[in-house]
Amino acid sequence: MTERLLLVTLGEAMLRFSPPGHLRLEQATSFDVHVGGSELNTAAAATCLGLATRFVTRLPRSPLGRLVERRVREHGVDTSHIAWADDGRVGAYYLEFGAAPRANSVVYDRRHSAIAEISVGEIDWRAAFDGATAFHTSGITPALSPSSAEATLEAVGRAKAAGLMVSIDLNYRARLWSEAEARRVMTELVKSADMLITTEEDTERVFGIEGDSYEDVARSLSGEFDLKVVAITLRENLSVWRNRWTAIAYEAATDEIHRAPTFDIEVVDRVGSGDAFAAGLLYGVLSGDVARGVRYGVAISSIKQTHPGDIVYATPEEVERVLAGGGLRIVR
Amino acid sequence: MTERLLLVTLGEAMLRFSPPGHLRLEQATSFDVHVGGSELNTAAAATCLGLATRFVTRLPRSPLGRLVERRVREHGVDTSHIAWADDGRVGAYYLEFGAAPRANSVVYDRRHSAIAEISVGEIDWRAAFDGATAFHTSGITPALSPSSAEATLEAVGRAKAAGLMVSIDLNYRARLWSEAEARRVMTELVKSADMLITTEEDTERVFGIEGDSYEDVARSLSGEFDLKVVAITLRENLSVWRNRWTAIAYEAATDEIHRAPTFDIEVVDRVGSGDAFAAGLLYGVLSGDVARGVRYGVAISSIKQTHPGDIVYATPEEVERVLAGGGLRIVR
Amino acid sequence: MTERLLLVTLGEAMLRFSPPGHLRLEQATSFDVHVGGSELNTAAAATCLGLATRFVTRLPRSPLGRLVERRVREHGVDTSHIAWADDGRVGAYYLEFGAAPRANSVVYDRRHSAIAEISVGEIDWRAAFDGATAFHTSGITPALSPSSAEATLEAVGRAKAAGLMVSIDLNYRARLWSEAEARRVMTELVKSADMLITTEEDTERVFGIEGDSYEDVARSLSGEFDLKVVAITLRENLSVWRNRWTAIAYEAATDEIHRAPTFDIEVVDRVGSGDAFAAGLLYGVLSGDVARGVRYGVAISSIKQTHPGDIVYATPEEVERVLAGGGLRIVR
Amino acid sequence: MTERLLLVTLGEAMLRFSPPGHLRLEQATSFDVHVGGSELNTAAAATCLGLATRFVTRLPRSPLGRLVERRVREHGVDTSHIAWADDGRVGAYYLEFGAAPRANSVVYDRRHSAIAEISVGEIDWRAAFDGATAFHTSGITPALSPSSAEATLEAVGRAKAAGLMVSIDLNYRARLWSEAEARRVMTELVKSADMLITTEEDTERVFGIEGDSYEDVARSLSGEFDLKVVAITLRENLSVWRNRWTAIAYEAATDEIHRAPTFDIEVVDRVGSGDAFAAGLLYGVLSGDVARGVRYGVAISSIKQTHPGDIVYATPEEVERVLAGGGLRIVR
Amino acid sequence: MTERLLLVTLGEAMLRFSPPGHLRLEQATSFDVHVGGSELNTAAAATCLGLATRFVTRLPRSPLGRLVERRVREHGVDTSHIAWADDGRVGAYYLEFGAAPRANSVVYDRRHSAIAEISVGEIDWRAAFDGATAFHTSGITPALSPSSAEATLEAVGRAKAAGLMVSIDLNYRARLWSEAEARRVMTELVKSADMLITTEEDTERVFGIEGDSYEDVARSLSGEFDLKVVAITLRENLSVWRNRWTAIAYEAATDEIHRAPTFDIEVVDRVGSGDAFAAGLLYGVLSGDVARGVRYGVAISSIKQTHPGDIVYATPEEVERVLAGGGLRIVR
Amino acid sequence: MTERLLLVTLGEAMLRFSPPGHLRLEQATSFDVHVGGSELNTAAAATCLGLATRFVTRLPRSPLGRLVERRVREHGVDTSHIAWADDGRVGAYYLEFGAAPRANSVVYDRRHSAIAEISVGEIDWRAAFDGATAFHTSGITPALSPSSAEATLEAVGRAKAAGLMVSIDLNYRARLWSEAEARRVMTELVKSADMLITTEEDTERVFGIEGDSYEDVARSLSGEFDLKVVAITLRENLSVWRNRWTAIAYEAATDEIHRAPTFDIEVVDRVGSGDAFAAGLLYGVLSGDVARGVRYGVAISSIKQTHPGDIVYATPEEVERVLAGGGLRIVR
Repeated sequence: MTERLLLVTLGEAMLRFSPPGHLRLEQATSFDVHVGGSELNTAAAATCLGLATRFVTRLPRSPLGRLVERRVREHGVDTSHIAWADDGRVGAYYLEFGAAPRANSVVYDRRHSAIAEISVGEIDWRAAFDGATAFHTSGITPALSPSSAEATLEAVGRAKAAGLMVSIDLNYRARLWSEAEARRVMTELVKSADMLITTEEDTERVFGIEGDSYEDVARSLSGEFDLKVVAITLRENLSVWRNRWTAIAYEAATDEIHRAPTFDIEVVDRVGSGDAFAAGLLYGVLSGDVARGVRYGVAISSIKQTHPGDIVYATPEEVERVLAGGGLRIVR
Repeated sequence: MTERLLLVTLGEAMLRFSPPGHLRLEQATSFDVHVGGSELNTAAAATCLGLATRFVTRLPRSPLGRLVERRVREHGVDTSHIAWADDGRVGAYYLEFGAAPRANSVVYDRRHSAIAEISVGEIDWRAAFDGATAFHTSGITPALSPSSAEATLEAVGRAKAAGLMVSIDLNYRARLWSEAEARRVMTELVKSADMLITTEEDTERVFGIEGDSYEDVARSLSGEFDLKVVAITLRENLSVWRNRWTAIAYEAATDEIHRAPTFDIEVVDRVGSGDAFAAGLLYGVLSGDVARGVRYGVAISSIKQTHPGDIVYATPEEVERVLAGGGLRIVR
Repeated sequence: MTERLLLVTLGEAMLRFSPPGHLRLEQATSFDVHVGGSELNTAAAATCLGLATRFVTRLPRSPLGRLVERRVREHGVDTSHIAWADDGRVGAYYLEFGAAPRANSVVYDRRHSAIAEISVGEIDWRAAFDGATAFHTSGITPALSPSSAEATLEAVGRAKAAGLMVSIDLNYRARLWSEAEARRVMTELVKSADMLITTEEDTERVFGIEGDSYEDVARSLSGEFDLKVVAITLRENLSVWRNRWTAIAYEAATDEIHRAPTFDIEVVDRVGSGDAFAAGLLYGVLSGDVARGVRYGVAISSIKQTHPGDIVYATPEEVERVLAGGGLRIVR
Repeated sequence: MTERLLLVTLGEAMLRFSPPGHLRLEQATSFDVHVGGSELNTAAAATCLGLATRFVTRLPRSPLGRLVERRVREHGVDTSHIAWADDGRVGAYYLEFGAAPRANSVVYDRRHSAIAEISVGEIDWRAAFDGATAFHTSGITPALSPSSAEATLEAVGRAKAAGLMVSIDLNYRARLWSEAEARRVMTELVKSADMLITTEEDTERVFGIEGDSYEDVARSLSGEFDLKVVAITLRENLSVWRNRWTAIAYEAATDEIHRAPTFDIEVVDRVGSGDAFAAGLLYGVLSGDVARGVRYGVAISSIKQTHPGDIVYATPEEVERVLAGGGLRIVR
Repeated sequence: MTERLLLVTLGEAMLRFSPPGHLRLEQATSFDVHVGGSELNTAAAATCLGLATRFVTRLPRSPLGRLVERRVREHGVDTSHIAWADDGRVGAYYLEFGAAPRANSVVYDRRHSAIAEISVGEIDWRAAFDGATAFHTSGITPALSPSSAEATLEAVGRAKAAGLMVSIDLNYRARLWSEAEARRVMTELVKSADMLITTEEDTERVFGIEGDSYEDVARSLSGEFDLKVVAITLRENLSVWRNRWTAIAYEAATDEIHRAPTFDIEVVDRVGSGDAFAAGLLYGVLSGDVARGVRYGVAISSIKQTHPGDIVYATPEEVERVLAGGGLRIVR
Repeated sequence: MTERLLLVTLGEAMLRFSPPGHLRLEQATSFDVHVGGSELNTAAAATCLGLATRFVTRLPRSPLGRLVERRVREHGVDTSHIAWADDGRVGAYYLEFGAAPRANSVVYDRRHSAIAEISVGEIDWRAAFDGATAFHTSGITPALSPSSAEATLEAVGRAKAAGLMVSIDLNYRARLWSEAEARRVMTELVKSADMLITTEEDTERVFGIEGDSYEDVARSLSGEFDLKVVAITLRENLSVWRNRWTAIAYEAATDEIHRAPTFDIEVVDRVGSGDAFAAGLLYGVLSGDVARGVRYGVAISSIKQTHPGDIVYATPEEVERVLAGGGLRIVR
């Protein structure tokens, strides 16, 4: 167990409230409760694939803070470096499941959360990075507040200094900050990174980078920021309940584009699929096989979309089975 | 707020019992409870779009009668002219959700309801029409019983006399009355109306009117009954869970056919979509724009089909978004 | 209907999340969702008893703000003077149901709510008080934030000026403000009031007023603040599931103490019982019969405790039946 | 199995809708669905104790009629003599669970049910009584409508003529008929009976018979109507959730009063307890031991009150265990 | 009723646990509970179509054994020949509903069940076959254990000797036994049978029989084992939620291939569809019309897939409606 | 964190299925799913109080085994020394919640579970005890099977040899083994122990030891087996929903009897209360304060009984609050 590679992630863990079935929020008399957050989702998915993981966040000492910690622990993710605050909220978001022509939608209630009020120096990064191989965060964490942007920069700087592989998921959220703000902070973060995960659209909005093809965009990003790996996820919304999903990754060392199969997905809950992809990619990259990372990333994130919750439940055997085109007969 | 146009509707509000998931009625150990009824659904949908609305019905003084009133009020529909009976039932219906090749099905238990036992003169229409611009009812209300047929004729007569715009949704229900009975009563009602909403099939069954095209049928109806607006809704059942849905409206003043886009719908619950369409059309017609009415009607009734319940939950912004082809990405 | 007395209340309406059954918050995978808030609860209960009511608050334009408005409307409470904000949260609280020796407990997440960020002048009180007879608020509203304290003072001042009967429920919440802060603001508010509802404990904590008996305390308060009516509610916690509940009211005009029967209560949900009591008392006082007010207040608030939710569902007939000692046989 | 004694019962089987938890009807967004009816409940309870049973009723050919039949069959009760109607309703009732000081309450929606529209001659009693030992019905069945009163009289007459032991549960329902109507019909029915089950209160209301004690009343009834066995159930409502429950039976042959122990009951659902008592008593009487019948009746009806639904789930071993004072430790 | 043809089936009835929605097993905090088992499913479906049925199995005397018996009885299937064991388990299985690209999956927990421990001679087959016309079992029952294989051979032998029509569903389960074991036992069983139901894949795995077409395979099987009827079901997995489903049957007497229409199915729960097909086929064959049997089989098994549970809820009218291409409009 | 005392426990973790509300097992259409087992419950409760804990068991590699591990991890209990089997079941039990006069009851389905098939030598106890201070198991583990009895003896022997404090909860289960078998094995186990937790009844049944008082019994046990601490829990079943609960502990070193307060408990779910008591006692004993251990044990196990599930959710602050007689007002 001690030999397992250790991935550390930093981010917010929120309560997620969603009405059962396809009820609209205004109809709800009960909400299903999940816990999620981009970097938590990635850590949990990476644990499924065999990595050791540690999730760093800031939570209030309250039943809600403890509720979150319990869910994180359930996934086998180490919570020993969470910063506990005497005050502050647990962020929340409300998710409404759509059906064509009504898209899924999200209402955020995450302002003033404990992690948004984190200060530089509050996390003991030396301890938090003890034994770690890689660090991952996303563009959501610095977008939460100026202080969380500072804290994210601190974390990435410390990770870089400690020799960790640094991975960033661009994840632009227009409701949290402007494109200009994002560009300023994300440029600094990505410059320190080894790996970037993004979409074509976010790349253009945040960095103004476009290309003739996904491959072009990935190459440009790699060149611009001196990145070893750049991955781009691709989603086609056939309808709300049917999507096509795949990804590519550019590996600078070999100047290769690695491709995953495209999956036809019956979508139960697509939230968190990008985060699960990141986990698969990290797993591959950390084990020295970017091609396998892209394939694992797309496969595990496809499974993610077939059950409720932000966090995937899957095993390496299931990932392999999906990649092998395991078929849709009942497994019995 | 006092300047809002006021729409008055008359009809039955029923309890609706449906087994959760796709359980058959005979399997059920619990029922989801909704409240619905064609003209209530229209009033509530019209409120979403900004009209003031008042729903007239007859209910027993009982917890079930009060349950219905509470649901009506929730939607912002005025209940102050409901007639309260010392006796009588609240009508009910049972809805079973299908899957191809098994269609959705409905079992009625609405006989002897308080509204079926309404008498002419029981509603103070002078008061109920105070401040009103339009009156709407459907072919279901007169089908409930001979006395409700009388009461519907009274209401339409009083509305006409009071100078209200009168709108009728043909809504033929074979389980409630014969085609001959329907023809007799509906002919009289439609003659007093300004606007008719129907389907090609119902038009043929009730009025024996056919045409080479939907447009033809609409024009014929307009001619036959001197109607200013005739709208026809069109549904294509690709499967139980996938439908195509649109409508057209003929405007006599300009001899124009107005068309809405056709929507591909992932159907969660299609009950009440015609009623929501009527609301959108009324909204458009009352604001002097039939073309917008058809588009709003199809859009709001498309949203209706994406969540449970007879009554739509939507905002004007969502209607616009759907009409603009808002896309199926998560709204966040 | 136009002759009904109109009661206006001001306060916060929150989402309430509670795990089903007796699950602890940390166990929850779903929450039951209710809407409540002291002054909303009072308005809704008063509607049950036949008063016309209007609830004033501040809510964000969002699905959650609309969810709250829908629940308010369901109870027949007028929402036309709610202030809608472009920004801000809907406050929330989490309720855990206890069992001896574990008490019920509440976790607040109400900071930064839209109502906490209300400004003086934002409500058009002239319009909001149009046709009104009485105004009611509680010590919770000014405790939310300095600006809501200002707005509450404004409202009470405008009510007083408009000749309305002013009623205050002391409702001290130690998690929202200190005793010193409460004393400063509540003294000012109660000075403008005609009626005060409180408990012996809160009276001592906020005003430092004690007495040999409940009656003494009520008389002292009346003297101190020149109040026409002072009511004190009395609860005995036999266990978490069994309580004894009653109240007294001092009427200054006659120097009388009015007493209600004491009820043995099987407690399903005691939240909101003080608010329902206030409604019964207001109903009695406004109809000129304080003695009836106390009795109605205790009876309707007893019913409140027998079903889930902050807001009572009851009819005047049920209130009378409980007061008449209606017995515990099945009503059929 | 063929040697089992066969009990035939006649009555209505209704759908029962109850809001989950202690929600009031007006709050409900779902209803738990049970099937019950006095004589069905008795038949099912008797099956638990080892009797063969057959339930006779009239149901519409519809999913709701079939739903009822399925529930009846589940309990091992023979449904082969149910009369199936092409038309008509399944009766329903709504049950609200109370808490002191709010009693449980019931709203009936059973008018116009298929069984209320039964005609004399519609049941082939010769076949329905084939192999039977006893017949049981209650005062509810004749109260449903004049035609069901006729049909009940027919059934009792045929049972008497066929030499069956005839048992009647008085079960007066004030919402269904007046005391005078009840007296007229029930007098005729009880005259043909061998056994009567009643309460002190019902006896006075229907027959005007009072006594110094329960024993007196039982003896008077036996004398008045020439009854072999008269049983009286006794309930003390300590609160809604705590009751005391017992019964006595007078056996004319020996002029003995048989008593059961009194049980302290934590009441989950008391509906149907009288019916389960009848089953225990019938079981005892048919096996020639009235004393055992009273004891079994009280024990099985005590178990009935500890779980949801009108129909008891119990085994003879559990009945014995309760009678033996089995204790309240976990059985494991 | 006594003239109805009686079908006897032998097999295991299991508890089935499935997480609600599309939750994965590891996420579940509750399980939906159904009862199913291949031969029980066939018996229940045959009852829907009008056959009398009797299900033979072995269950422990326990609340779980009684739970199973209650569910069997609900479907109108005779349980009077179930063998009750003092010891042993009720088998269980866990079902996880998938979505593309994740297939449905099943986890068995059926070892050591009471039926797996059945002994030859334990069932009184003379009594169990009293009045019977046909006997049906599947390849699952002998796969449970060596002793259940013996008991199945005994049953088939006794059925044959008693002149019953013997039907076998091949139903190979790789998790229960090897292909070699299956071949040895199934060869013996099928030799005694009149009718075999299978799939192309199972036929190859168990008997090593292949062909150029389904028709070929059916003919080969008929020839090899001297079978009067061989049916082959055909499923195409378009996705997890959309399947195509049909069947053919070879009738040796006429050397005809009978075909059913192919249905496009929106799959709610496909478990048990083969068993429902068997019921339809048996119904047709027993009424002398193999062609109708195939059509009824495919239609009733299509309905099966549109609602939850192993056991179909359908009426002959619904079967006819589906075969007539009844359309997907709401039935109202 | 590294300084926390480490408690290792050994035992079975089962799935627990219970019908919601007070439904009987035979009524259930869904089961609530919990995970529990005496020694797991103790480890999780000890974690609440601040101990580090490790739970050792044997589970199959299957979704059900992983489900169990996830629940264990959620509570912060280390799962790294669980033995994973390629085969075998997860044990299960069914819990039915009672109401007077019907007791709670349990149906076991735990035979052939993976832990029952554990072999001596399968656990690497040197590693499992690394860093540990104490070892705890109960009389249930050796009762599961002869091989689990061997494995328990091995564990206790290794714990003793490693210098750990050894604690045993007697926990006699009559359904698992006879008193004679229990005596033989438990005598050997308790001889190696430092601490024993038991009830008066179990002590008599297993060891034949009686006394004039609880204190006597504790002293006798201490003398007989050379135990440093003997604790006896005491429960009084006022009814099913109301219990009185306390405990005493005898400390040999000081010859003192330590007593806890007696709590009046409103019982939601009493399963696991003895296990939570053991955790509190262990916490006290390991921190050198037996008196505090008894008090903490009774307090945390009282909280256990107020919410669903075998495993307590509590904080040290809540334990202190209960011990301080915190009162039953809402905590807000």
